Parts: sequence; C-alpha cells; structure tokens
Amino acid sequence: MTNSTTEKLITLEEINAMSRLYKINLINSLSGYKSANLIGTKDSNNKENLAIFSSVVHIGSSPPLLAFITRPHTVPRHTLENINETGFYTINHISAAFYKEAHHTSAKYPKDNSEFRMTGLTPEYIGNFSAPFVRESNVKIGMKHKESIEIKINDTIMVIGEIQFFIVPESSIKSEGNIALNELDIVTISGLDTYHKPHYLDRMPYARPHQKI
Amino acid sequence: MTNSTTEKLITLEEINAMSRLYKINLINSLSGYKSANLIGTKDSNNKENLAIFSSVVHIGSSPPLLAFITRPHTVPRHTLENINETGFYTINHISAAFYKEAHHTSAKYPKDNSEFRMTGLTPEYIGNFSAPFVRESNVKIGMKHKESIEIKINDTIMVIGEIQFFIVPESSIKSEGNIALNELDIVTISGLDTYHKPHYLDRMPYARPHQKI
Repeated sequence: MTNSTTEKLITLEEINAMSRLYKINLINSLSGYKSANLIGTKDSNNKENLAIFSSVVHIGSSPPLLAFITRPHTVPRHTLENINETGFYTINHISAAFYKEAHHTSAKYPKDNSEFRMTGLTPEYIGNFSAPFVRESNVKIGMKHKESIEIKINDTIMVIGEIQFFIVPESSIKSEGNIALNELDIVTISGLDTYHKPHYLDRMPYARPHQKI
Repeated sequence: MTNSTTEKLITLEEINAMSRLYKINLINSLSGYKSANLIGTKDSNNKENLAIFSSVVHIGSSPPLLAFITRPHTVPRHTLENINETGFYTINHISAAFYKEAHHTSAKYPKDNSEFRMTGLTPEYIGNFSAPFVRESNVKIGMKHKESIEIKINDTIMVIGEIQFFIVPESSIKSEGNIALNELDIVTISGLDTYHKPHYLDRMPYARPHQKI
C-alpha cells in the first residue's frame, strides 16, 4: 500500500447502520472480482429466460460441478423456478462485446418478455439439449441440476449442477487444459454493476515447499 | 465470436476420461474469473497459517456474509482446522504487488512452517482480533465463522462467515459505496494458477425494463 492513502476501518455496527443500496454496493465489493455469466433456462411451456449472475463458482472437477447462489423463493426468480421445473440450464460467459446487453437482463421483466428478445441476444439450441444458450457467448456450458442447498443463515440457495458438455473456441484450450479466458475477451464484475476486462499477468508453476519465489 | 475460430464441443464423458491435472485445469477455468484472496488463521497454540483461495463469494449484505469452498477433512487442511478451533479468520485481497508470494502459500508446508515466514508476507494484528491479517494487502477483512455446510455430492465444505470489520484505503470507497478494486491493483485468477489484472471497462446503471441499452 502506498503511504499517501489513509486507511479506513469500518465495523459491523457501521455496516448494519448503512442505507440499503450503499451497503449492497460496499459488501458486494468485498469478495473480490466475480465471474460474469448469463444463465439460460426455459419453463415447461418453453418460455425462455436469461439472467445475469456474478456468483457462479467452481465446486469440483470429478464430477465437473459448478454452483451459483440465488435469492429466496419469496420474490419471483424465474431462473430458479425454471431449473426446478425442467432440471436443465445453460451457463454462458459474458464478453466485452455484449456486457451491456447482459447487464440489461437484470431488469425486472414479466415472464412473457423473454430477456433474449428484450436485449437482442440470440437464443441458440444445441443438439437435443432443452435449455437455450447465448449464441454471442464464447464459453457455453450445458448444465444438469443436481442439488439445491438452503443457506439458512440468510435464506439464500446454492444451486449445484453438473457440466453435461461445453463449447469453447478450440484455440483457447492450452496444452495443460487451462482455457485462456483473456483471449476470449471474457469480463469480470466487481460490486453489483462494474465491469472490467482482465489483462494476463502470469501463470505460476505448481508451488513446492522451499522453492525460490 | 470471430469466424476464424473453430468451436470445440467437449462432453461429460470426454471430461471424465481426461487425465487428472488436465481436467482440473480445464474445469477450474469454466466458472469464469475468480476472486484472489489469502485467508489468515491461527491455531489454539498461536501457530499462524496463510493460504490462498479463489473460491471466496458474496452470500449476502444484511448480515454481511462471505463464503468459501474448501476440500474435505480427509487431507490436512490447516485453514479449516484453525477456523474450527478458534472461530475467527481473515480474508485479504491479493494485489499485483505480491501475487507470487500469495501463490506460494499453496505449497504443502507442515504446520510448524508458517506460510508468513516462508513467503515473507507480514502478519499484522489489528485491535484484539485474534487472527492474523496480511499487512501488504489493500483490502483486509476480519471474519467470524457462522456456519459450515457440507456439499455431500463431492464431499466439499462451504464455510460461511460474517464480516466483523474491514480496512480499505479511504479513497477507494466511492460515493455509492462501491470499492474501486481496480485502483487497488487487486488481481483475479482463472483456472488454478493464472493471474490477471482487471482494467476498468464501465459501471452500469440499475437496469429497468424497456430502457435503451
């Protein structure tokens, strides 16, 4: 840290006393950079839904599992409802080319107004997989719902799914399996609404005790 | 997507047949960019531990909760053991100035070799909070353990804690509460081991139906 900056200590009591929006912006910034994904679903009447999430996390590789956190059932949550109805969904990475359209999926549309139609993003169906992908996305993942875990402490839900297949540009997969997200223009989110484009810094070797840093 | 790239579809069966390391690198890339944090703990004998995590996520703002995912008890996991023993830990954002040292905390040291000593990062104690912070970090968060949730499907654990206080440079907190992580040189991780420095792209307004994108 540079010496010219003044450090600010903020306590739990001060956080709890903040106005709602200030607090949401602040606390959402504190986990660090977040993934930026669009989750595509359909309901049992084939109505499409598309919603932005910044809470998709890696849970494990064997089996290949991703999770995301969603709000309670107490407000309309079309993504969760559709996953519960159909069992399938898609995760589509957001790139710099369409982050504005992706962000707009957070507007509260009634169920009849598909976010695909309202944003101009293109639904894409792959094989016989029932949920819609986002054609514009460079990383498209077909997911099967496996488990929903209630987080009772604040009445949220962690939705866990298994990767059924995914599609990426072949050139982005490097020799050891890592995908160069930076070559695909994928963005990251801080807080609720701030988009950033990561620039590659370094790939580090597997760390062993007593090696030179 | 540019037309010059060939898309590659990879199925669950192909994933399951991959070699362990290739698969870990690949699947860890599929959630998108990840947060980069050092978690600081002490055991009941005051032995310090510091470990890198890329799974810290925001769970909620009222109360202010962060979670992270960790591996099973079946292998030594000093961070989890220490949190269970003491109930407190720290989350410290990793910046470009010390990502190499941060990465090195993933080397498997026995419990007597503090990762602080082995990396040169500086333990810092704040007030009477028992767990060590990382002095070099620009975003330091004191956490109280609230709940651990077993993810039975792959035997991992989600550790949930409440923010007790945090310290950031005052100038990084903007007028609506968002913290400008990009001004603090905070990094993001893709896959297991690749570090990136995000560059600010845009802050988007709250999305309302039918507004112009």
